[in-house]
Amino acid sequence: MQKLKNISFESTTLENGFWKSKYDVNKNVSIGNVYRRFEETGRFNAMRFARKEGEPVHVFYDSDVAKWIEAVAYLIQSEGGFTQEQEIIDSLVSDMIAHQLPSGYINSYFIQMEPDAIFTKRSEHELYCAGHLIEAAIAYDKATGKRDMLDMMLRYVDCIERAFITEKTAKFVTCGHEEIELALIKLYEYTGNKKYLDMALFFLDNRRPDVDADPLYDSREKSYCQSHLPVREQKEALGHAVRAAYLYIAMEEAAQKTDDKELSDACDALFEDITSKKMFITGGIGSAREGEAFTVPFDLPNLEAYSESCAAIGLMLFALSLQKKRLDSRYADTIERVMYNNLLSSVSMDGRSFFYENPLEVHLASVGKDSSIVPARRRRLPRYRRLEVFSCSCCPPNINRILARIGDFFFSEHGDSLVINQYGAISLENERISLKLETNYPYDAKIKLSGKRNSYKSILLRRPWWCLEYKLDGATVIGERNGYIEIAVGGDFEITLDLMMKPYFVHTNTKVRDNCGRVALCLGPTVYCMERLDNDCDLNALTVDVNSPVSIESSTDIPTLVANGYLDVTDGALYFIGESERTSIPLRFIPYRCFANRDACDMLVWVRKA
Amino acid sequence: MQKLKNISFESTTLENGFWKSKYDVNKNVSIGNVYRRFEETGRFNAMRFARKEGEPVHVFYDSDVAKWIEAVAYLIQSEGGFTQEQEIIDSLVSDMIAHQLPSGYINSYFIQMEPDAIFTKRSEHELYCAGHLIEAAIAYDKATGKRDMLDMMLRYVDCIERAFITEKTAKFVTCGHEEIELALIKLYEYTGNKKYLDMALFFLDNRRPDVDADPLYDSREKSYCQSHLPVREQKEALGHAVRAAYLYIAMEEAAQKTDDKELSDACDALFEDITSKKMFITGGIGSAREGEAFTVPFDLPNLEAYSESCAAIGLMLFALSLQKKRLDSRYADTIERVMYNNLLSSVSMDGRSFFYENPLEVHLASVGKDSSIVPARRRRLPRYRRLEVFSCSCCPPNINRILARIGDFFFSEHGDSLVINQYGAISLENERISLKLETNYPYDAKIKLSGKRNSYKSILLRRPWWCLEYKLDGATVIGERNGYIEIAVGGDFEITLDLMMKPYFVHTNTKVRDNCGRVALCLGPTVYCMERLDNDCDLNALTVDVNSPVSIESSTDIPTLVANGYLDVTDGALYFIGESERTSIPLRFIPYRCFANRDACDMLVWVRKA
Repeated sequence: MQKLKNISFESTTLENGFWKSKYDVNKNVSIGNVYRRFEETGRFNAMRFARKEGEPVHVFYDSDVAKWIEAVAYLIQSEGGFTQEQEIIDSLVSDMIAHQLPSGYINSYFIQMEPDAIFTKRSEHELYCAGHLIEAAIAYDKATGKRDMLDMMLRYVDCIERAFITEKTAKFVTCGHEEIELALIKLYEYTGNKKYLDMALFFLDNRRPDVDADPLYDSREKSYCQSHLPVREQKEALGHAVRAAYLYIAMEEAAQKTDDKELSDACDALFEDITSKKMFITGGIGSAREGEAFTVPFDLPNLEAYSESCAAIGLMLFALSLQKKRLDSRYADTIERVMYNNLLSSVSMDGRSFFYENPLEVHLASVGKDSSIVPARRRRLPRYRRLEVFSCSCCPPNINRILARIGDFFFSEHGDSLVINQYGAISLENERISLKLETNYPYDAKIKLSGKRNSYKSILLRRPWWCLEYKLDGATVIGERNGYIEIAVGGDFEITLDLMMKPYFVHTNTKVRDNCGRVALCLGPTVYCMERLDNDCDLNALTVDVNSPVSIESSTDIPTLVANGYLDVTDGALYFIGESERTSIPLRFIPYRCFANRDACDMLVWVRKA
Repeated sequence: MQKLKNISFESTTLENGFWKSKYDVNKNVSIGNVYRRFEETGRFNAMRFARKEGEPVHVFYDSDVAKWIEAVAYLIQSEGGFTQEQEIIDSLVSDMIAHQLPSGYINSYFIQMEPDAIFTKRSEHELYCAGHLIEAAIAYDKATGKRDMLDMMLRYVDCIERAFITEKTAKFVTCGHEEIELALIKLYEYTGNKKYLDMALFFLDNRRPDVDADPLYDSREKSYCQSHLPVREQKEALGHAVRAAYLYIAMEEAAQKTDDKELSDACDALFEDITSKKMFITGGIGSAREGEAFTVPFDLPNLEAYSESCAAIGLMLFALSLQKKRLDSRYADTIERVMYNNLLSSVSMDGRSFFYENPLEVHLASVGKDSSIVPARRRRLPRYRRLEVFSCSCCPPNINRILARIGDFFFSEHGDSLVINQYGAISLENERISLKLETNYPYDAKIKLSGKRNSYKSILLRRPWWCLEYKLDGATVIGERNGYIEIAVGGDFEITLDLMMKPYFVHTNTKVRDNCGRVALCLGPTVYCMERLDNDCDLNALTVDVNSPVSIESSTDIPTLVANGYLDVTDGALYFIGESERTSIPLRFIPYRCFANRDACDMLVWVRKA
């Protein structure tokens, strides 16, 4: 059933440009900083079974470290090196193996803290941790050829198979937090052993309302962890957004591997539901803090947007799986939306700190609003400053591993055609083509494609949803297919594509209550926002004139757009009769991904239209 | 220090007109319906000490019934009758007296449920209930001459004095929910016994952060019950809005009776803080459901507005006290704002059911938004349908008692001047004047004043804040003073005043994030809103043209205004580039007080300005 093949980052090289700089900051700063903070917070010691007095162990620690290992593995795969990190990982793995139970069980929390509760608590992330360790073990084995971690995990997977499938000694059937399913499919792909695919299918098929009754989950709706319906009947994205996305990835991968039309249709419906009703313009998903969850269709509140970094990454990966199923630019459009907005907003420009939630508005005056009540019951608005680590620190290493494999998102293969899904300064080298993309994307959308074509018959260039017209030189357009421009190229080619990027305003369906009468200024794939540092007034008192030209100010760090607008001037009264005055004022916008990189201040994406 | 005197409803008679119809619905429907539902929910049986199997008793039951008794007493005072209700009350009082403890203590919850916990739990509304019973006992004694209830309460007040002041056996010092303070001042006024004023001052003076440490309140901020600062230092309205308002009333009354400038200044600052920063256009106060509380300045969210009915009543009564301190139309303006909006929205037009919270927007699509999480943790939006009774049913009988004494709000006396604070079809008869007001107010603002002046030297007519020009015939204008038009009238007079009411749009200070770019349509004191039943589309997709004329449609039940506006038409996509289309459309508005009297539907006060 799989119609396309995604081309791995292994065949690509990032050239000097936008993504190379993000990749380098991740490699040179973020990886080290996440490691340091994980050491300081006892995460590594917990996994070494060498906890120091007073250091906590949490149920999700294994997954935090696993994602960091996975990130390091991708970097090694790309460029070798990382000797020190390899020593840390090798020593850690050997400590883990030393403490692996005879059954093959390995989990730093349960072995040390609740050995009697192994496989009894559905809510406590056990198989979720296992999944991330599997992904890390595969990546590390592939990058270094060191199999110890993978072997450890294969023993653990056997143990899981016995406990959950053959002997059924476990006290629950499916994990409260999905992840094991997609990891087992990766393991099947990596080893070729169909047993792992069957295990994944077991966990998918048993995610049903009539299975599992963890008392810890009794108070939650079953949709919280997508157990409200058999997976094939799920058509609406519900519940915890990260759990949901990880499930949908596994569903789509399983559907492709087993030609399961029902499962595939469910994934199509879920993707449609998310992208047409439940996705912020930044690619963020999960509207509510409570439950970190999807809510009702068109509920996209900017000030309270939860929009967790991990959920956006989940959506990118879901779209990456769907991208293999059929040629349709909506998948790469969605990936692009996340890449340039929610993914990059989640890490500071210096690479040191991270957002867990990614709001679309910051209004400092509202931050302490519920100040007179029980502190624990206060409604928290999203943080407006990034942190180096969180007590639940799933997002930082997730960002690490995605940026380390960002090359995975650029190319795919559709029969005899090379598909270019994302644009950037990157080169691709394989037996069918030698290709180099030169571009300042996303600052402009002029792309030079040059190289030598061997066996591909055509190239499919994604025409982004925002691209209203384009210019192409050096190739013949065969036609447009599902959002892709198909071109015929010579053996040696040099093509220029200009997607004619210019600032544009986006409107929202009026069903989205919070965006009525508002527009978002964008440039190519980049969503812009205003910060109060650049616009010293109540940001909601500003309106933007969508009919006058927007100028682009070149700036090294934070590229700025300047639009014409107005400031409503009101007298001091709370309520008053008669016209409000307005004065002309230039509005200064910066990319959303750059917000909160200076002093804390108000921020606004959706600006009132004059 | 008291400069003005409010004229009691006893000297007034509501004539056929707007308020008479509201008064009659209250008398003929609401009073009976609240009684029925209170019987059905065991509130009366609890107070009779005749609880049936399975009937609950709650700490606030005495106060619910007390407010109902107070309402009935005002109706008896006005018109006599209510024989059946008097029998119910007399028999109830005799049951209570039979169960009053030898100490004088009387509280249906603690005697029956927690006799060992009497006066040990600051949070459990004991003195709050006592306060409402005092108010009821005064009103009932005054209306009927039956002293039993008052005598019972005087014994209870002596018991309270011993427990809290002389012997200090109580385990807390001030009640978690204010009310006793203002009731004791009323008792002082009614009996002339200064001891009751001293007790009120004791409770006011001891409301301080260094006094009282109820473990039940440890988790709450001290501002929740206004214990964060000594009362004289409180300048910002904080915490539970009903508690706050009841405290401020007592503070102002105490200030006037003791010439306490510090206390008086605090009340001025609190009133200013509320009305210039924390009051909805409807007169509602208390922005947040959590804590039923004031939040930060300019936080006035329409969809989530808590705006409790009791809090609006508290604001009316606070303004009524302030109105005695100095001639300033802001107090009566605020009372008018509440009277025609939040007070009347809190009861259905048929008088049968009530709102506890009074939101300024209903968006049904958002009601179930937090559906995937722990039900107990869901963020609840305000109810959009009125109920006949609530488990905590403080509001319905509070509305009963205020509508029964609505005549209290119309007139005051300022030296030799009669002050007309509110307009309506009402007559006033006392030794200094015989006055009849004839008007269709608030449907129009033409008022005929006729009668015979005896000893007053002038009449002061409030010029409402919304009145931009007026016409006056039959009297000589002496001048304007603090928002009042002072006129000289002859012995026999017939004056016509036209406040030139016409529809107008109100803007909000841009510090109110939620109202930027929005206007509220008003007519005189009445705030209007759109309901989806009359405007079949997403209400936030509509904009109103504030420059084109608004027409007034006469309608018997629900008077309608029609404005010109536009509907934004968007294509089906969640996000799209380019201009949104808009089509002209008439917008139909009804008075806010009339909303939710038909089928449940979306409602909006603050409409986007075209």
